Formats: sequence, structure tokens, C-alpha cells
Amino acid sequence: MRATVLHSPGDIRLDELPDPDLVDDTDAIVRVVASCVCGSDLWPYRGVNAGSKPTQIGHEFVGVVERVGSTVSDIAVGDFVIAPFLYSDNTCALCVKGVHSSCVNGGGYDGCQCELVRVPWADGTLVKVPGNVDEAMIPHLLTLSDVFPTGHHAAVSAGVTAGSTVAVVGDGAVGLSAVLAAKRLGAGTVVAMSRHEPRQEVARSFGADHVVATRGREGAGEVKEILGGIGADAVLECVGSADSMKQAFQTVRPGGTVGYVGIPHDVKLNLPVMFFTNSNLHGGVAPVRAYLDELLPDVLDGTIAPGAVFDQTLPLDRVADGYRSMDERTAIKTLLRP
Amino acid sequence: MRATVLHSPGDIRLDELPDPDLVDDTDAIVRVVASCVCGSDLWPYRGVNAGSKPTQIGHEFVGVVERVGSTVSDIAVGDFVIAPFLYSDNTCALCVKGVHSSCVNGGGYDGCQCELVRVPWADGTLVKVPGNVDEAMIPHLLTLSDVFPTGHHAAVSAGVTAGSTVAVVGDGAVGLSAVLAAKRLGAGTVVAMSRHEPRQEVARSFGADHVVATRGREGAGEVKEILGGIGADAVLECVGSADSMKQAFQTVRPGGTVGYVGIPHDVKLNLPVMFFTNSNLHGGVAPVRAYLDELLPDVLDGTIAPGAVFDQTLPLDRVADGYRSMDERTAIKTLLRP
Repeated sequence: MRATVLHSPGDIRLDELPDPDLVDDTDAIVRVVASCVCGSDLWPYRGVNAGSKPTQIGHEFVGVVERVGSTVSDIAVGDFVIAPFLYSDNTCALCVKGVHSSCVNGGGYDGCQCELVRVPWADGTLVKVPGNVDEAMIPHLLTLSDVFPTGHHAAVSAGVTAGSTVAVVGDGAVGLSAVLAAKRLGAGTVVAMSRHEPRQEVARSFGADHVVATRGREGAGEVKEILGGIGADAVLECVGSADSMKQAFQTVRPGGTVGYVGIPHDVKLNLPVMFFTNSNLHGGVAPVRAYLDELLPDVLDGTIAPGAVFDQTLPLDRVADGYRSMDERTAIKTLLRP
Repeated sequence: MRATVLHSPGDIRLDELPDPDLVDDTDAIVRVVASCVCGSDLWPYRGVNAGSKPTQIGHEFVGVVERVGSTVSDIAVGDFVIAPFLYSDNTCALCVKGVHSSCVNGGGYDGCQCELVRVPWADGTLVKVPGNVDEAMIPHLLTLSDVFPTGHHAAVSAGVTAGSTVAVVGDGAVGLSAVLAAKRLGAGTVVAMSRHEPRQEVARSFGADHVVATRGREGAGEVKEILGGIGADAVLECVGSADSMKQAFQTVRPGGTVGYVGIPHDVKLNLPVMFFTNSNLHGGVAPVRAYLDELLPDVLDGTIAPGAVFDQTLPLDRVADGYRSMDERTAIKTLLRP
């Protein structure tokens, strides 16, 4: 099969690799219908946390089940499925608590910006989309494998509820998804912090009530002014950099919560300030599988249309262009079709 | 009046100071009926964060109102009152959100291990105890000025709810209060981590289902074994040291929350591990005033008897002995009567 391989920082290629095979009885092989590039794929692409040898890459996809292991019973050949970006058994003590991202049998795929993916624990992992899947629905369904539930996790972690005041730090696809997720949860006022016009537009279309382009203490001051002078009840930190986390804690009100979903890189927390202001930190890797039963119906009935985060669609053999445009921020998020 | 003054680390004296006077129209002067020594008083006593000149000390007390400013209307001369350890106006945007510890007009007293205290924002701060106050009720009411609501804040911050599995790190008066608070909130299994027999006994009397005397990874392993192998839903961190915070994160389950109420000293957080396990950090300075309407009735009707944290009562002129016995851990918490 054709599969995307990161050979070294900046060197993304579509290689010919052997088709994956069933290994365990609980596996499925899924033929990819659509995959995409994640902001977190850019870290190794840029040489941060990069491995030393060529590695398959990609973790977000939807597809059609092609083969199943002998004990797979809930998922069948021909099903159109959403694959959460981590697999999980959905039965262990941690899955039962809703922390599928820490499933005792869980892990990541070998890569999915390719044609075929082996999915361990297929019954526990894959979510079947009922009925016929319209072509126009594919981008929206694809967001359910990672980016939208990750934005949702930021909002849930930050305790967003009806009437909450919310600020979103980060205008990548996750940040934009967080805007939509916060509004879906009933947030009152949502302020998107963004300096990029096309992203501001998506944020507004997702329900952002205000956009603040200024950063740092001054930007936090603008947000506070919008939100009655005290800062946001909930700040959704969707980047993971030292600057963005600092921005988040500058923007949250005393007693409020920063919900963070960007993998932290060189972040320093000011714990004494957090303590004396009761500013909480909640979040981590999104347990995508835990949220799909709740989110899928809203996507299928059109209540939300999270696929608007995709502003570039490329055939798989142009995957390197997809990485380049996301790296250069000329694309928000790139969808790949094999 | 006689007032406790910290002259230099280890040098606590009862000095003669001028009586406090009303300054603002919103002030009250309260005659102290009982005060006590807090674990946090021991930090400056031991020379950590100590000021450079003699300073009045103490922040937990109950008493009888002796004078009120001209605009004080809810509190009257003769009222028996609980004084939350920080004053607050109870009307600002942050008080309305329940974060009285960040009140825009808030602050701390000049000290209260003495005879008379000036209380700013008396209406917003003081809580009147209805009816006659029985002598036996005084220790329980005194805990409401800080130590019990602080334990309660650890439990609330950690999200303790019906059936939660809980571990409490720290067997000082706050840790013991946290055991009682967790049980009051309906926690399922509560494990108290304590190596000291008298404190273990109080923990058990407050509802701890298990006591684990081992610390570090091994102690966390024992807690996990008790709690079904995955760690605690909620860990209540009631110390504030590097070791205790490390213990807390070793003991919490993925997706669980550490509720912390001990002022952090030299704590280092392992943010990547927190992120990949969704281990959350909530808490800070307890907004005592926010909790009193809920907690006072349970104390008055005997549902809870948090005063059991006091195992030493001394007259005020022996305050130095009180500090010494808490510093040497021969007393859990010392109550002072003027």
C-alpha cells in the first residue's frame, strides 16, 4: 500500500509499504476513506521529539472495514467507521471511568495517512456510522477521530457549562473546534484569540462572540474587559507552547479553569500564582472514544458542522504539500484522500 | 491588649499592643473567644517567608462583636461570629463567583491570636451563629474559620462526589478535616495516608476506611491496590511540600484530580505526565466564606464534629508552648483561649 513516512525532519514521503495484516483476533483492517494532518504531526515534522529512523505517521481517519479478527463482533466488514486516534478496549477500569486515552490495553496506530490501517481492539475502538454516508458528510465525520473531540475535551475539562464565559487560546483547528464545542455546551460569551483573518472567520462561523487579536498581558486585558473585568471562567488552551499556556493563565479569572489539550512543550507553570488565585489546570490527551456517542448524533443531524476546519483537500500523493502548507500556516488543516 | 507577635523565627511572644480601633465605616471590632495555631503559621515560625520585623500572627478565630462601624447592618454588637481567615465584601464579581479568597476588597487580619481584632467589611465577612453558643460547640465553630472549610475545599476542588474513591495526603489538621469533608460529600472509599497513630485514630473517627502508613511509590501502590488497581479518583493534597505533591500525583488515577490546599513550597510538577494521564490540579486558598452557609448547619446540628482536630487547649499566655508542640508534632492543632 501507499503510506506516508516521515524520513527526517521536513522530509515527508509517500512510500510503498506492505499491507498490514490481522495480528490479534480482536483486530480489524480498515481501508482509509479520508485522513488528515494534525498540528501534533508538525512537532516531529519540525524535528521536535522526532524519531531517528523513517516512521509511518498520521492518527486521524475514517474508513470502511475490510477484514475483522475472529472475535470481533460489533464491527463488521463493510461498516463505515470513525477511528478515534488511540485504540482502546472500552472495557477496562479506566475506559469505564471515561479515560480511554489511558486504556490499559490502549495505544496508537502505526500511521494512517495511507490506504490500510490495522486497528487493535476493533470492537472497543471503532464507532460505526449508521446508514449511508454522504460524501459531504465525510469531513465532518473525520473531525470526530481527533480534532473536534479534542476541542470538546478542552471545553469539558475547563468546566464549560451553560452561561460560562470562555476564552480560546490558539486558532489552529483544535482551537477553532474548541470554540464550536464551547458554544455547543451552552457557553455564554466566547472570545477567540486569533491574529489571522481566515481563522477569525471560521471562529465567528463557529459561534465566537468576540475576536481578540492582541496577545500577552494586553490581550488578556482586552478579554477581561469584554468579560466584565475579571477574566474568563474557562480558558481553552489549544496549543501547548510556553507562550500559550502563559496567555491562558493571564486570561483566566480567579477560581476559573484552564482546559488544556495541546501537548505541553517547555511549559513552566507559576504554581504560587495558580494557588493564590485558585486557577485550575485540567485536561490532557482527549479520550475521544468516550465522547463519540454524544457527539456523533449532533454531526449526523447537522447540529454542528465541525468539518469547516478543513480548508485544503489533497490526494494522498500530495501529502508533502499538505504538511508544508500547514507548517507555513497557509492551510488550517489538510484533508487527505487516498 | 495582649497579642501574639512573631519576633523572629522560633521567637513567639505575647506582647502588650494598643487595642485596634474602627477605621472604616464597614469595620467591626471583635473580642476573641477562641483562636488557634495553623500549620501555615509554622512556615514563618520556622523561618520560611518570615518578615524582617516583629509581626502579629494568627488568622483563625471566633468571637463576640464589640463595636461596629456606622454602615454595618447585618452584624450587631453582641453577636457570636465566625471569622473566615480572609475578609471579603461578599458582593464583588469574584465573591459572586464564590472566590471570596480573591475578593477585590479582600485581605487578611493584622493577627488574631490576641484579644481584639479589627475586621474590615464586617457584613461581608462575619457569619453570625444563631442562638446561644454552648461552650462545647466552640472548638467545632472555630474550625469553620479555616481548617475545616480548607479540608472541604480540597475535597470540592478534587471533585469528590457520591461514591468517589479518595486518598488524603497529609495527616495534619487540614488533612484530617479533608477526610471528614470527603465523607460528608458522600465519598465511597477514603484512604488516609498517615504514619502517626494518634492522627490515624482521628482519621478513622472522621470516616477514613483505610489508613496507609507507607509513602512514596510503594505507598501509592498500596492505595491503588485498595482502590481497585487504578489509583484514586480524587487525591486531597493537604501539605504543600514537594514530596506531598509528588505523592499526590503518584496516587491519583488517570483522569483523576488532585485537590490541593497546602501553600506550595518548592513544588515541581511533571506536566508531561499530567498531560498524558489527564491528571488534573485544582485548588488553592480556600474561599471559606463561600462555604459557611452550607457547613455551619451541619456543625450546629451535630452532623459533623470537626473540632476533634484540636488535641491541645492552652491559655493565650502559653501561646509559645502551642507553637512549639505543633512544630514538634506533639500536638495536631492547638486551641488558644484569651
